[in-house]
Amino acid sequence: MEPDKSRPLLSPFSDEILGQRIKEVLLSSHTCPHEMIVHITSRNGKLIRPRLVYLSASFAESDPDRVRDMAVAVELIHMASLVHDDVIDGASTRRGQDSINGLWGNQAAVLLGDYLFAQAFHLINTYTLPAVMEIATETIKTMCMGEISQMNMACQLQIKQEDYLQKIHGKTACLFAAACKIGAITAALSPAQVKMLEKYGLCLGYAYQIIDDLLDYLADPLLWNKVVGSDWQEGNVTLPLIALMQDKKYQQWLSDLFSTRQLSPLQWQQLIAALYSTGAVKYCLNTAEEYLQAAIRQLEHLPAVPALQQLQSLADYLLNDYYHKLCKTERQFAKDMVYYADQSSLQA
Amino acid sequence: MEPDKSRPLLSPFSDEILGQRIKEVLLSSHTCPHEMIVHITSRNGKLIRPRLVYLSASFAESDPDRVRDMAVAVELIHMASLVHDDVIDGASTRRGQDSINGLWGNQAAVLLGDYLFAQAFHLINTYTLPAVMEIATETIKTMCMGEISQMNMACQLQIKQEDYLQKIHGKTACLFAAACKIGAITAALSPAQVKMLEKYGLCLGYAYQIIDDLLDYLADPLLWNKVVGSDWQEGNVTLPLIALMQDKKYQQWLSDLFSTRQLSPLQWQQLIAALYSTGAVKYCLNTAEEYLQAAIRQLEHLPAVPALQQLQSLADYLLNDYYHKLCKTERQFAKDMVYYADQSSLQA
Repeated sequence: MEPDKSRPLLSPFSDEILGQRIKEVLLSSHTCPHEMIVHITSRNGKLIRPRLVYLSASFAESDPDRVRDMAVAVELIHMASLVHDDVIDGASTRRGQDSINGLWGNQAAVLLGDYLFAQAFHLINTYTLPAVMEIATETIKTMCMGEISQMNMACQLQIKQEDYLQKIHGKTACLFAAACKIGAITAALSPAQVKMLEKYGLCLGYAYQIIDDLLDYLADPLLWNKVVGSDWQEGNVTLPLIALMQDKKYQQWLSDLFSTRQLSPLQWQQLIAALYSTGAVKYCLNTAEEYLQAAIRQLEHLPAVPALQQLQSLADYLLNDYYHKLCKTERQFAKDMVYYADQSSLQA
Repeated sequence: MEPDKSRPLLSPFSDEILGQRIKEVLLSSHTCPHEMIVHITSRNGKLIRPRLVYLSASFAESDPDRVRDMAVAVELIHMASLVHDDVIDGASTRRGQDSINGLWGNQAAVLLGDYLFAQAFHLINTYTLPAVMEIATETIKTMCMGEISQMNMACQLQIKQEDYLQKIHGKTACLFAAACKIGAITAALSPAQVKMLEKYGLCLGYAYQIIDDLLDYLADPLLWNKVVGSDWQEGNVTLPLIALMQDKKYQQWLSDLFSTRQLSPLQWQQLIAALYSTGAVKYCLNTAEEYLQAAIRQLEHLPAVPALQQLQSLADYLLNDYYHKLCKTERQFAKDMVYYADQSSLQA
């Protein structure tokens, strides 16, 4: 994930404080792999997960160091899973720069991921919070199992929406939910409040991943370092394709196209045009919005502290800033398509 | 590591009970990757690490379930590191059967390793033992960092014995030490006793790895499922080669030979003969024996419970059963060499 310019100021802890603390924690041991840690901490992501921790903790008074460190632990778990994902995917870049495996090889990346997990547990253990430890271990197990059980879904165009939702639960939603739950438990909120915040995180996570998957088709490469089309290239079937497959007119066409991992620019533009014209894009956006609304509904019975407003605006941010500012407009795509069609006919 | 027929009966918990509990813990979640877990638990290793946990705990009364589960947690950490090591090494077999990555690919293996780590932490957390958690996280960090910092030593014939010892500290000795320390702490032994047992485990771990590295050259493939020569093939320089390099007459010869990863049978036999004739084998055995003696010395001031005798015999077992019963005798090698030399001259 890329840092973006439109990031809202949500934080009682600034990104700088969090980023600094992540470095401090990781570099605290004199035997740590200094160079690799400097590399992975040189560009923070959006830090959404640690924000969820401290915003959820903000509904009661609690030790700020403890909250900060639980936020850092959650980000470390996220970082570990990204480092391992890059090994799995053979990805040579991450957050717009070389990945750990790209620079130091798979061996280093597997070990660094393990180190990051261990460091996260170490940090949680410092505060003797068994309930937080329980959430963290269960979440990692869910993340791993989600990925393993979905492995046989790769390159299957016929997967159902519920399979997709199960997949993104393990990939994203469960850690978003855990972040909120960890924050809420760290601040000793009531069980009912813990539950509301956990569900808020869960729904936000689903929405986030749906939007992210849509951006993998629609993001404007000029605004966004993310490589567009990576899901297609990996045969990772996400909601846009599942929605497109609902249109009988496109089923055969998409099935045929799907056997090609590297599309020509024209084929890619035709695919995007189909996502727009069939309403697949709209369907994905509506689904994401429903999750966001469900997330916001969870906040209704929470006390009106400043964090409440910030959790609400985080939901708005995902759709308005993260999505709308970063994707090409339909009109832009239409213009591109005419251009590519022209190019293509010139070549023909 | 292979199960072997000469395993001594050390356990208040039988291997069957431990094996059963490992399966139970791993299969407890309904979302677990059932098939993979059945596969990795179908053949136990030597279970030395969990034995170290419960033998160390046996110096005082303590909750047997808690001790058993800490023993299981340590074995899970070991299993996780093996699964990840196989990804790193691209090993297609483990304990004489297909490795996880060999059967299900790297993706599954990385995720399964993460799952095993998480399950180990989960189990430790069940008993709210922050001191044990601290040891476990620190040990995993040491294991990872040891491997990372030694990565640049691969294929370097000139490494010093102290670098090798540092390498096997991270690879083996630190987890042996941790197993003893975890057992001792679980049973609330005195700080002095904890320290003695930790040092016992550390020394035993060094000895174990030195013997294991020697067996990588000397083991009889007929008695031993382990593939002989894997360290050579991977360019992993261990004590036998370091010792051989001390002999000036062999330095140039070994340097030349070392550029070949796949030796002919004759070259291999010549290498083994050189290890014997230069005293490199003897040097390794002496070094291992010194560590074993240092381990046994740590036991002198511990109370004479039955576990004490078992810890002593574990040290004997490593040298007498694990090593002597499994390696070819020098005479056997000499015979083989004549055979290979004949074969070679027949082909010439």
